[in-house]
Amino acid sequence: MEQLKGIYTITLTPFDEEGNVDEMGIRKLTDFYIQAGVDGMTILGIMGEVHKLSESERLLVMETFLDQNDGRVPVIVGCSAPATNLSVALAEKAEKAGASAVMIAPPANLRNEELLFQHYAKVAEKISIPIVVQDEPVTTGVVLTPKFLARLANEIPNVKYVKLEEAPTTIKISKIIDLVGEKLLLFGGLGGMYFYEELNRGAAGIMTGFAYPEVLVQTYRLFTEGRKIEAREYFYQHLPLIRFEAQLGIGGVTIRKEIFKLRGIIESSHVRFPGGAVDEATMAELEDLIQFVGLSLTPLTVS
Amino acid sequence: MEQLKGIYTITLTPFDEEGNVDEMGIRKLTDFYIQAGVDGMTILGIMGEVHKLSESERLLVMETFLDQNDGRVPVIVGCSAPATNLSVALAEKAEKAGASAVMIAPPANLRNEELLFQHYAKVAEKISIPIVVQDEPVTTGVVLTPKFLARLANEIPNVKYVKLEEAPTTIKISKIIDLVGEKLLLFGGLGGMYFYEELNRGAAGIMTGFAYPEVLVQTYRLFTEGRKIEAREYFYQHLPLIRFEAQLGIGGVTIRKEIFKLRGIIESSHVRFPGGAVDEATMAELEDLIQFVGLSLTPLTVS
Amino acid sequence: MEQLKGIYTITLTPFDEEGNVDEMGIRKLTDFYIQAGVDGMTILGIMGEVHKLSESERLLVMETFLDQNDGRVPVIVGCSAPATNLSVALAEKAEKAGASAVMIAPPANLRNEELLFQHYAKVAEKISIPIVVQDEPVTTGVVLTPKFLARLANEIPNVKYVKLEEAPTTIKISKIIDLVGEKLLLFGGLGGMYFYEELNRGAAGIMTGFAYPEVLVQTYRLFTEGRKIEAREYFYQHLPLIRFEAQLGIGGVTIRKEIFKLRGIIESSHVRFPGGAVDEATMAELEDLIQFVGLSLTPLTVS
Amino acid sequence: MEQLKGIYTITLTPFDEEGNVDEMGIRKLTDFYIQAGVDGMTILGIMGEVHKLSESERLLVMETFLDQNDGRVPVIVGCSAPATNLSVALAEKAEKAGASAVMIAPPANLRNEELLFQHYAKVAEKISIPIVVQDEPVTTGVVLTPKFLARLANEIPNVKYVKLEEAPTTIKISKIIDLVGEKLLLFGGLGGMYFYEELNRGAAGIMTGFAYPEVLVQTYRLFTEGRKIEAREYFYQHLPLIRFEAQLGIGGVTIRKEIFKLRGIIESSHVRFPGGAVDEATMAELEDLIQFVGLSLTPLTVS
Repeated sequence: MEQLKGIYTITLTPFDEEGNVDEMGIRKLTDFYIQAGVDGMTILGIMGEVHKLSESERLLVMETFLDQNDGRVPVIVGCSAPATNLSVALAEKAEKAGASAVMIAPPANLRNEELLFQHYAKVAEKISIPIVVQDEPVTTGVVLTPKFLARLANEIPNVKYVKLEEAPTTIKISKIIDLVGEKLLLFGGLGGMYFYEELNRGAAGIMTGFAYPEVLVQTYRLFTEGRKIEAREYFYQHLPLIRFEAQLGIGGVTIRKEIFKLRGIIESSHVRFPGGAVDEATMAELEDLIQFVGLSLTPLTVS
Repeated sequence: MEQLKGIYTITLTPFDEEGNVDEMGIRKLTDFYIQAGVDGMTILGIMGEVHKLSESERLLVMETFLDQNDGRVPVIVGCSAPATNLSVALAEKAEKAGASAVMIAPPANLRNEELLFQHYAKVAEKISIPIVVQDEPVTTGVVLTPKFLARLANEIPNVKYVKLEEAPTTIKISKIIDLVGEKLLLFGGLGGMYFYEELNRGAAGIMTGFAYPEVLVQTYRLFTEGRKIEAREYFYQHLPLIRFEAQLGIGGVTIRKEIFKLRGIIESSHVRFPGGAVDEATMAELEDLIQFVGLSLTPLTVS
Repeated sequence: MEQLKGIYTITLTPFDEEGNVDEMGIRKLTDFYIQAGVDGMTILGIMGEVHKLSESERLLVMETFLDQNDGRVPVIVGCSAPATNLSVALAEKAEKAGASAVMIAPPANLRNEELLFQHYAKVAEKISIPIVVQDEPVTTGVVLTPKFLARLANEIPNVKYVKLEEAPTTIKISKIIDLVGEKLLLFGGLGGMYFYEELNRGAAGIMTGFAYPEVLVQTYRLFTEGRKIEAREYFYQHLPLIRFEAQLGIGGVTIRKEIFKLRGIIESSHVRFPGGAVDEATMAELEDLIQFVGLSLTPLTVS
Repeated sequence: MEQLKGIYTITLTPFDEEGNVDEMGIRKLTDFYIQAGVDGMTILGIMGEVHKLSESERLLVMETFLDQNDGRVPVIVGCSAPATNLSVALAEKAEKAGASAVMIAPPANLRNEELLFQHYAKVAEKISIPIVVQDEPVTTGVVLTPKFLARLANEIPNVKYVKLEEAPTTIKISKIIDLVGEKLLLFGGLGGMYFYEELNRGAAGIMTGFAYPEVLVQTYRLFTEGRKIEAREYFYQHLPLIRFEAQLGIGGVTIRKEIFKLRGIIESSHVRFPGGAVDEATMAELEDLIQFVGLSLTPLTVS
């Protein structure tokens, strides 16, 4: 079984101007991400507005991404839900559809480690693909300690990955590695803002929705080729933009959709209500920053 | 258009031992509630484990309750969702299926009054039945001030009811009535623990899942007949039990299912995971209390 | 060393109309509480508006209570603070002044069990009197699991008591006793609303600020004399009032001060700003309830 | 009356190895900050571990900073407290001691705009110096909307400044300026991470504890001289370090003390317990970053 590592882009879910799922947009996004060099995709996360999709839309989005991907890169499917039976059902469908792994965040406010452990155990026993534990304390209200994550990895064979979101991720990466070594592969987060440092601490990659995944791809490539000084230089050069996107929280969905629209990949930047709005000045700041760091709004062209 | 008032029981969703929706249980529960004298039912609330139902189950539960009810009492359908479009879709289905009103809590953590106002406005314009605003600060993380509730009532014609859950409900009832008078009809909550005082402050009724709705029915009947002293006496007599159930929070689903099972109305007390467990001592305490307040575990028989 | 148990009233801090600490009020309150039969007093808790006192006022209040008490009953002194050094300093002063124990809640939002453990350990090693761990999740944002409380008791000799506030206290009492037996003595809370059930589960007593401590004293006396049926009957008779006070949250300080003023024990019901206000209807409801349950507003007279 | 603007460093409170307030450290820090070119100091904020100081220490720290400053730059004194009377007392002392303004955050969890308004109004009427409203939603649990901040500015004459901490600060700055124009001067925050953009949106300056205040001073100087392109270039050059410090949350106190110790300004990096620890790798990353952005650990020398 191949290990997942590198750049897993957290995908958007494009809609048309009326708010319907834009299947063609999903297909174009998929091609774009792969062309940008990502190692895989994580679909149906918060950035993908999964909580604003009906069940049938959730399946439609999953199937369209998987169909367009056609086995080119591993796809991780978000299967978080407030009840265990719902997560199980989603995970079973994801495995059957060809997902390489499922990503599951704690049910909101479930601050009881024993129940939480059982939640993961019950999902795990129904599927044979790996589970990515999504550490997302701000959204879920649940803190996952390194000790608890280590227990999950030690006692549930398919818990193999963690996507970190609790700051500072750097120190947390070191603590988890001290406890379980390579039993858990760790993905960074926080919008990519500490990606170089996360790699340096031993992260296996990153999962984030940053709208220029090619920047993370190149940083990762340089780093894994042992050219750390170049990786750092390159990463810091793009930091003003990465930082800017990261500030926006849920507004980040809107801004990322605007960028993808400007790049000609999706047709509408529609975000389902209630969504974080951004003002015009933010768009201007953003375009300015894109230029400043040396990127462009033209579509990616294969080099 | 008839006004909703009196005792609206918040219904359970019965499952069989394997966790499947128990349609026969829904039918027997419906008959029980109506036989107990409730003025209406509020289905698909938190007590009904709505967040643990798949979309198709949610529809199945709604249709089974409405079918068995067959127009005997008004039915309010919970249509809360994290996104406006999902609430709209649920509310449209509820109206079409024959609901008398929909109940909608704020999307979790949406602490922005302008977005919240628009959320209600957007749902309201798509349906012609009234909206019950569900005040549920502990679960949603959103506080609804009397001023904001008054604004909803003043600017959105079908916002006609509020179901209160923020303690102390007594003082909040008076504040809202001071602001909007009869434009909003108010339903008490908190497990029924302050029902007499809520009525005295001007509440139009109560919505709660207390497992002996006949006690609330009788309290309300005495009160509205002007026999307030008897209403109070009767209510306080049953207070030890009401208070006991109220302490259990999410564990309350389990205990209420146990009672309905003991009363022979549902076959299984299965609660979907992760659910609040209760220990054996709790069951013993409960049975003891039921006897102490002069109630019994035998099914209700029409007097 | 005598064990603390029974009714520990959580004391108010009376002010005059200008908001200054009312030393005479403290003396009269002390005499009242002791005359009412309490087993001890817990001073400088949240109900005592401790967070609204300056440091010198905090010491003044402590010394006045201890001086007036003059060794008649054990006094537990609240020594919670955001930093360990501050709690240590307060605890050392409390011990020196003659406190029987100190009560310490977790520093707000310190959701890290290792740091929390050290917080208690560091205070413990500086004093020789026992520590009451205050479980107060709503105020502190910190949940103390039975397992963690057991660890405190097992590893820190002077952690001997817990004052519980997380609902349902009944089930938590049983869980803690299962883990550590008599190593921890447990005091109930929640405004006294489940006192009979808490005793039945093995609680050693209760700490609460309920304005008629004599009711809890009598309940406890009947219960510990083995007259459980009478204890329950007596307790439930007063439940409407206990429940009413409990609903008020921080408004409870105001209402309790109003009652003590009406009973002629303190001269002013002044609560420091920002404090929970109550409306006039609440006062009327309260006086009505006091009469209903058979109590009176006249001062306690020794029987 | 002169307006406060520019770089207000949020000062640390140095301790010796035993945890006692290090008065000499305060004096050396004061000289350092002024030498670094800051426009003023904000003392006794969260970064200054104010919640871990006893009352007498709080006064000692205030007086030592003011004495050493000797009128060279304006000093803003943090006077936040859970009760209004305590904030009033602190603010009166600050004014008397020579503070140019006081900074006050909402009492924790006071989610009631009317009470909050009165809190500020009551402090304001007791002092004649301006109030800086501290927007600090993560720590206080209170969100201050642009509308509420505008109301404070319109109705309370000495509410003249806001220090922002809610992300994204950029959009919030524009919203507040749209509502009240220059009636409120706005200071950025978030560790300095968006300082250039904040200035561009109309911020009057920034308050942060970033350990290289000279970088912010220079950014501000270039910006206000109209050399915006240079300001941006210079700011982005130092962004890797600013971002790194910002990730650490409460751990930031420790790391900043370590830097000031390495720079020879304070003798001990002691942080009072419970404080955020950092691991050794963090220190190594930090030293590396300092070098990378072209700064040094040697003390500032006047150029």
